[in-house]
Amino acid sequence: MISSRISKLSSVLNSSDLDAIALNAGPSLVYLTGLHFHLSERPIIVLFTAGNEPVIVLPELEMLKVSALPYAIKSFPYGENPGDWAGIFRKAVNSLNLDGKRIGVEPRQMRLLEFRQLESGAPKAKFPDASQVVSSLRMRKDAEEIGSMHKAVKAAQSALEATIPLIKIGMTENELASELVVHLLQCGSQSEMPFAPIVSGGPNSANPHATPTDRKIQQGDLLVVDWGAAVDGYISDLTRTLAVGEVEAEYRKIHQIVLEANAAGRAAGKPGAPCASVDIAARTVIDKSGYGKYFTHRTGHGIGMEGHEEPYMRGDNMQLLEPGMAYTVEPGIYLPERNGVRIEDNLVVTENATDCLSDMPRELRVVG
Amino acid sequence: MISSRISKLSSVLNSSDLDAIALNAGPSLVYLTGLHFHLSERPIIVLFTAGNEPVIVLPELEMLKVSALPYAIKSFPYGENPGDWAGIFRKAVNSLNLDGKRIGVEPRQMRLLEFRQLESGAPKAKFPDASQVVSSLRMRKDAEEIGSMHKAVKAAQSALEATIPLIKIGMTENELASELVVHLLQCGSQSEMPFAPIVSGGPNSANPHATPTDRKIQQGDLLVVDWGAAVDGYISDLTRTLAVGEVEAEYRKIHQIVLEANAAGRAAGKPGAPCASVDIAARTVIDKSGYGKYFTHRTGHGIGMEGHEEPYMRGDNMQLLEPGMAYTVEPGIYLPERNGVRIEDNLVVTENATDCLSDMPRELRVVG
Repeated sequence: MISSRISKLSSVLNSSDLDAIALNAGPSLVYLTGLHFHLSERPIIVLFTAGNEPVIVLPELEMLKVSALPYAIKSFPYGENPGDWAGIFRKAVNSLNLDGKRIGVEPRQMRLLEFRQLESGAPKAKFPDASQVVSSLRMRKDAEEIGSMHKAVKAAQSALEATIPLIKIGMTENELASELVVHLLQCGSQSEMPFAPIVSGGPNSANPHATPTDRKIQQGDLLVVDWGAAVDGYISDLTRTLAVGEVEAEYRKIHQIVLEANAAGRAAGKPGAPCASVDIAARTVIDKSGYGKYFTHRTGHGIGMEGHEEPYMRGDNMQLLEPGMAYTVEPGIYLPERNGVRIEDNLVVTENATDCLSDMPRELRVVG
Repeated sequence: MISSRISKLSSVLNSSDLDAIALNAGPSLVYLTGLHFHLSERPIIVLFTAGNEPVIVLPELEMLKVSALPYAIKSFPYGENPGDWAGIFRKAVNSLNLDGKRIGVEPRQMRLLEFRQLESGAPKAKFPDASQVVSSLRMRKDAEEIGSMHKAVKAAQSALEATIPLIKIGMTENELASELVVHLLQCGSQSEMPFAPIVSGGPNSANPHATPTDRKIQQGDLLVVDWGAAVDGYISDLTRTLAVGEVEAEYRKIHQIVLEANAAGRAAGKPGAPCASVDIAARTVIDKSGYGKYFTHRTGHGIGMEGHEEPYMRGDNMQLLEPGMAYTVEPGIYLPERNGVRIEDNLVVTENATDCLSDMPRELRVVG
């Protein structure tokens, strides 16, 4: 599987204006090599070129991972003295004659730590943004990848179902988030979570990117739970909004609007439709309701090995949906300093339509 | 607390050759601003200069976090269209007249995503490595920070104690890692773990940076467990090695050597001693035993908000230990393709000595 991905990248490189791709530790590296590394203070780079075996620069103490690989890769290991690293990076870059060439990078993943080593090894090279090249491969998921995502959705849904009965008034957001993580693990998520769940109640729910706090859950709160599981390296990313007891009429109203926007967004995706159409469908519902200015983010993002990846469901993204692409639909309405609502599902484009992987009820459920 | 850290950074900047420090999302930003952001596809930068309030460039949808801050900060928010971002970054940089100046960055944390925006906003600026400037502040922990680290150690120790009775032959490394995470949460760790625990058995334990696999735990394995908890944003990072039933005599022997190396390393640290002395003390024990070439990494690293931070316990690091510095002592012996041992503790330098925060028994415990 890895070998076929590496050859696919080779042919993409052959037909591009890039001479190489340089990746540091992260999801694209896992996708293309099967190698898992942490982003540590020790720089690691893999260089891919058309027709040569990949070249890796890495700490000696990570060599065991490389020697276990079922395909050919050329290693340039370095020791614990940072003063020696630049020389090793230079050797690796020179082994592929890359100075003066075009070496594509992923700006979202590549740190200056790795980049400066790379640059000093190839001072005349150019380093264009190659995110699209790598994401064009990752974006089109095969059946096995989609199978893993489906499992990650099921694990997440079971975990929230198991957690909901435990929600009590007076419990903190942090306590609830911990309970949810425990159930995510018990329901089959990997111990390396895709992201820490968001549990945000009352005014905190009006912040789309809240992190859980010690605020206690109160009667009358909306409670936004944005959570996911990871299975075989693929993730889910869902959101449901709950009502703690009786909530204001306006909160029920905005929940209903977001529910309709979510349904419109889910219905809009199909092969050949631009990503924009998903955003527009969801946004139109909210705009028409008069709450447009409180829907402050795009409707969704690609999903797979990461929570946020290509393609993005933005009103200006004319990228066409294709079978195998997976994405979220997650409209929201956030009333500043009051309460907020978001409802998020995970979809995959099929040959003729889209398949919604998540099926947990979206209606406003009363808890506490 | 945050305000005093910002003023401390101001005075450090005043006496340095830097005109500013630019930080992206991560631990140093949390330390200096209290702001938590994920590293997403949306670049976020905070610029610190001596004498001005900090300047932040961020997505509009994150503005709520900034408006809640108890100190002055100047915001440059941007919308969802990436085409507009460069202009906003330029405005932010120009508001501080930073073009042509020296703007320090953290290469280990800064991605090209943020850096290229910064660079295009200040094309004539220089961007030297300022990691030392920021770490010089973070490295000297106050009593509250050390208190949190102590709690994180206690949570981790309780979690492993609760997990050990569950270890059974035939269980996979992944299953054991999940159980451990469940107990970490139940013992008080934040839901955002400092790192995914390493559980590595048999030949996998000979890889110091293993990730848990589906390999089943077997009679005769050494089992390396490298785990930690997070409390109030501060972490612990411990390792114990367990024996699954009766193990080879040589494995018991290398465990005993590592135990002595760990004790020597713990004893070597004190105010005024160079970090090197900790490494040398531990390494000498292993070298003398004849296993020196199987101890393939430095003896430890700083610890606090991150698993790996300054100061590093390396044989060539002449940095002197000072009260408030916290670090790990974690010697190991790794017999390739056979088994490995590591024993890791967390220490804090006090006025006259060091305080070992971790006290879980280090002797080879038999499980399974």
